[in-house]
Amino acid sequence: MTLRDLIARKRDGGSLSDQEWNFVARGVASDAFPDYQVSAFLMACFVRGLTSSETLALTDAMLNSGQRLQLDHLPMGRVDKHSTGGVGDKVSLILAPLVASCGVAVPMVSGRGLGHTGGTLDKLEAIPGFSTRLTLAEAARQIERIGCVMIGQSAEIAPADRKLYAMRDATGTVAAMPLIAASIMSKKLAEGLTGLVLDVKTGIGAFLPTLAEELALAKEMVSLGSHHGCPVVVLLSNMDFPLGRECGNGNEVQESVEALKGGGPPDLRELTLRLGAEMLILGGVERDVAVATRRLEGVLDSGAALEKFRELVIAQGGNPAVCDAPERVLAQPAISEPYSAYRDGIVQRVNALVVGRGITALGGGRQTMEDRIDPSVGFRIHAIPGDSVRKGDPLVTILAADAAGVAAGRAALDEAIVIGDAPVTLPPLISHRVTAAGVEKLGTP
Amino acid sequence: MTLRDLIARKRDGGSLSDQEWNFVARGVASDAFPDYQVSAFLMACFVRGLTSSETLALTDAMLNSGQRLQLDHLPMGRVDKHSTGGVGDKVSLILAPLVASCGVAVPMVSGRGLGHTGGTLDKLEAIPGFSTRLTLAEAARQIERIGCVMIGQSAEIAPADRKLYAMRDATGTVAAMPLIAASIMSKKLAEGLTGLVLDVKTGIGAFLPTLAEELALAKEMVSLGSHHGCPVVVLLSNMDFPLGRECGNGNEVQESVEALKGGGPPDLRELTLRLGAEMLILGGVERDVAVATRRLEGVLDSGAALEKFRELVIAQGGNPAVCDAPERVLAQPAISEPYSAYRDGIVQRVNALVVGRGITALGGGRQTMEDRIDPSVGFRIHAIPGDSVRKGDPLVTILAADAAGVAAGRAALDEAIVIGDAPVTLPPLISHRVTAAGVEKLGTP
Repeated sequence: MTLRDLIARKRDGGSLSDQEWNFVARGVASDAFPDYQVSAFLMACFVRGLTSSETLALTDAMLNSGQRLQLDHLPMGRVDKHSTGGVGDKVSLILAPLVASCGVAVPMVSGRGLGHTGGTLDKLEAIPGFSTRLTLAEAARQIERIGCVMIGQSAEIAPADRKLYAMRDATGTVAAMPLIAASIMSKKLAEGLTGLVLDVKTGIGAFLPTLAEELALAKEMVSLGSHHGCPVVVLLSNMDFPLGRECGNGNEVQESVEALKGGGPPDLRELTLRLGAEMLILGGVERDVAVATRRLEGVLDSGAALEKFRELVIAQGGNPAVCDAPERVLAQPAISEPYSAYRDGIVQRVNALVVGRGITALGGGRQTMEDRIDPSVGFRIHAIPGDSVRKGDPLVTILAADAAGVAAGRAALDEAIVIGDAPVTLPPLISHRVTAAGVEKLGTP
Repeated sequence: MTLRDLIARKRDGGSLSDQEWNFVARGVASDAFPDYQVSAFLMACFVRGLTSSETLALTDAMLNSGQRLQLDHLPMGRVDKHSTGGVGDKVSLILAPLVASCGVAVPMVSGRGLGHTGGTLDKLEAIPGFSTRLTLAEAARQIERIGCVMIGQSAEIAPADRKLYAMRDATGTVAAMPLIAASIMSKKLAEGLTGLVLDVKTGIGAFLPTLAEELALAKEMVSLGSHHGCPVVVLLSNMDFPLGRECGNGNEVQESVEALKGGGPPDLRELTLRLGAEMLILGGVERDVAVATRRLEGVLDSGAALEKFRELVIAQGGNPAVCDAPERVLAQPAISEPYSAYRDGIVQRVNALVVGRGITALGGGRQTMEDRIDPSVGFRIHAIPGDSVRKGDPLVTILAADAAGVAAGRAALDEAIVIGDAPVTLPPLISHRVTAAGVEKLGTP
């Protein structure tokens, strides 16, 4: 068997056996193939697609290319949340300590920002000293001790996925549904979970172009989870405009701390509570969304969630003063410049995709995996679609490192923000819920 | 513009502008893109296809990535022949001196063997001292002096094609019709031709799987030639079984010398004469196939063609004694072992594809462009489809370097040769003729 033969098979629309997917994953993990063959293979997979059984075989092969978190000895449920990537989405930073403080362990392996989407690891690393590079053994000990851990995908976890993902990014083969599903699930299944909640983004700022594809991705991931005895709940949430008000890295940590104190913008709180409620139910400590939500609200209001976050920050080497005075601990932007409304009217659009690209242009995101991030830059958004504004009102504060950054940020906002006269109906924040039982339509605006 | 954007466009079934194809070709020629992006791009092109105007744009872009032979000052026509690759096909070695000795210049840029197909350069290099590495300036001077030259694709000629071809070979993207057409024509148009004859192989040993695709390739190349003012005649010739009796490298030179003396097997002579007649007509020295054929026969019988070959060998540093006693000049195999008929009957098949792979297994061909070739090994075939044989009759002589080679050769022949009882009707050697005027069906068995 050679990769060249398998490339030709996939190229011609054929499918690979479980054994052949294992050959691919093992070879990728051990760098046995030249990059240019792997990228040609990925393109053939992108264009020709994978059957469901191939997606399952690829997931298993990537999962088995690495180690797993060993948490079977823990008495409590282990539940993680993962999103397909958004703008302003700092939910993970809030959820991990919030859910852990309710007695469900959260072993969270996150990613970095890429393209227009932000990354949990980049946000965490805005906290001085915070390390996301733990071994699986260290992560397991931290889970035992404080109930949550937030780390990156080390070489131990699904290394075949890690290498394939980097290659997909460089070759325009990221946005293929089976490849996304297998990539996410191979990492998540390595966490030794008893349940998983997925937040699949929809709308302008989402990876996949249509709701049909997003639902297909959701169903595929539910099915992959079922096959491994890991129940999966998927919520589809809107990403037409950024989540919350802060978009960047350091400023998103600041907003997360506010949310952990029971504050923060309503859309951020709503999505966090709903995802958290699903996690408590999957974790076996609650049975009803409304009751679970009230419990989570209580933990936020009591300060217990923030205390769990403080434990997490201390455990991973970060400066715990971020919980008390984030603006003193986090790097602050050199320039804060208002961006004002160009006319009277109603904000029609704050395009999440364009805002996300604007963050990258400011230096707060990545074009390639090698780019470094400035945690101090970003946008603070004061107006969302549906808000009435007067000409000259500050719509956004641009947080920039220099004048060039301000100009880049301004250019992005010129494109992202549309003010008009029509009344705006916001899409539902959470539109669908997908489980092994099927698809449930949730949201009414 | 980035290659990543163009990958995404092609991936989604879009097409590229002339300017974008130029960007691709220039970037490939100057190594501006990582290999893995180029290979992903090629796979997207393979699966999604190219429009005719894209094929033209790619051809022009690859052509313009390098230099051209400057032969406009010559009084005579300049005509080349190129084949899509076969087994036992040594026609180029005979044709170049044959046609040159009739007053038509032949500036021939050839390739190396790859996979199951042999390569003219490898065969020429079986002649001790023969160099195929001439600069374009040296090649032009040799054409002026003796009327023919046989060289490889140097870095001067269509470098973008050179690099893309190597990448296509490694990634299973060779056999795409538009990529083949653009690759061949970008090299051929760099030769400064006034006409071109193409031999597109059909049957088991051909690159493309169906006659429909072979005809499409032929038409595409005719159209690319027309667009550059270079009339193209394509003959479709059968490659179900090897051409001639000798398959390898050194032994094919020996058979070429026989043919240049007016001898050699009838199928080799028939194809050579027909291709040569088309070249004389395109070169403006004859107007009729029958008359042109008689002229070529005369030049073979008179020894003039062999003397032109001698001039060519001397001009390119080879040992001219190959013309007189090739078996003394060419490396001889360590072992010559007969392969015998396993039953009485009629030879049904001598599968060219399998024979070609057998030559590679013997060490006389390449799996990758880096492989070295042993010029002494190969097969000498004594029986072709339709021949009646008795059990034990020698069907093939295996020319091998060692016992392992003999075993590999034997295994290939076990697969390639089928003896049965049914009468065999040979396919026509030349089945179609394609020109700007259309497709003409030629052959009746």
